[in-house]
Amino acid sequence: MLSSFLLYNFFMDKKISDKVINRLTLYHCILDDYINSDIEFISSKQIANLLNVDDSQVRKDISLLNNSGKCRVGYIVKEMKKSIEETLGFAKTKNAFIIGAGNLGMALAKYDNFSNYGLNIVALFDNDKKKIGGNVNHKVILDIEKLPNLCRKSNIDIAILTVPKEFAQSTADYIVKSQIKYIWNFTPVVLNVPKDVQVWNENLMGNFLQFTYSI
Amino acid sequence: MLSSFLLYNFFMDKKISDKVINRLTLYHCILDDYINSDIEFISSKQIANLLNVDDSQVRKDISLLNNSGKCRVGYIVKEMKKSIEETLGFAKTKNAFIIGAGNLGMALAKYDNFSNYGLNIVALFDNDKKKIGGNVNHKVILDIEKLPNLCRKSNIDIAILTVPKEFAQSTADYIVKSQIKYIWNFTPVVLNVPKDVQVWNENLMGNFLQFTYSI
Repeated sequence: MLSSFLLYNFFMDKKISDKVINRLTLYHCILDDYINSDIEFISSKQIANLLNVDDSQVRKDISLLNNSGKCRVGYIVKEMKKSIEETLGFAKTKNAFIIGAGNLGMALAKYDNFSNYGLNIVALFDNDKKKIGGNVNHKVILDIEKLPNLCRKSNIDIAILTVPKEFAQSTADYIVKSQIKYIWNFTPVVLNVPKDVQVWNENLMGNFLQFTYSI
Repeated sequence: MLSSFLLYNFFMDKKISDKVINRLTLYHCILDDYINSDIEFISSKQIANLLNVDDSQVRKDISLLNNSGKCRVGYIVKEMKKSIEETLGFAKTKNAFIIGAGNLGMALAKYDNFSNYGLNIVALFDNDKKKIGGNVNHKVILDIEKLPNLCRKSNIDIAILTVPKEFAQSTADYIVKSQIKYIWNFTPVVLNVPKDVQVWNENLMGNFLQFTYSI
């Protein structure tokens, strides 16, 4: 009962739908690219063409921004970029630990784009003695046993779970015990957690099947 | 004009929405787990609790399956699993090359779950001489220069793009030249491709922001 109430509130507070958030971050990627190429203006049609969506959809999304940067010759790239950042709350930094320093954990730790979007990876954790003490992209790999203690000391919002499938649930239990309330789950396991912990399943297979359903 | 027509047809042919596909793959993960634990039956409520969604939603999704495996004491786990596989077309195998044998490419090559869902990773490609000739999870790493030739010989449906951001567009151009028509894009770059090539953006930052928008 409590959980559905929270869920209800959660959606009521949300002004922007998931699909729009997703598209706005893609517009942000395009704007970033334009800035790197020293291009000052962009049209909704150019964005629409790159993403193979309707021009009217792009204009509708842009209308949700406080300041779209609209001017006579299109939109001012830098202003629209800044406005997307403000609207989606990139500025509010969230701290995260990566749990599992395998290939996927390493790849995410190296993904410099995260910090542009307000995700600060503080450290990685693993139980492999050969990995502990090493570092990747200036982030240290720590012993998983230190997790509860470090969570108490640091202001950690999110655990990014990238351990092998067979350790997913037991590691999630350990994360919950360490008082982290948000888990970004990259394992193909549906985790059993208490109601006050939120899990976001990065469902790669679901995404793949959405893509390939029509092939 | 042509592209919006194709898009229209694409959605018209689709009987199951993206959200439902996503949830059905999560049910599939749960069923897999139940089978590994030798549990024979499952209720919609058990699934709903694990995913923190409404029981009625789960029952509605299940009603889309040809054979839900419903019986007196719930649903027969093995039958529902098989039915999800049939409905989502797991059986129809798609062949893919991973382009970029960095941490992310390696992680995806090691992700054994893919083959359960009809995704057959045939090989990886890179331009790093130190990596070429190596192999990961019984898949060989080949010289990117061999891509066009090998695409001509093999029946490859999908290129999974995992190169660094700065090489994303040029590598995509090379993939297009190699006649691959579907790109699963893991880079944070919106690719510019001809209209007959479909790109699925694995928009990690969009997903992250959907998750953290309310934190």
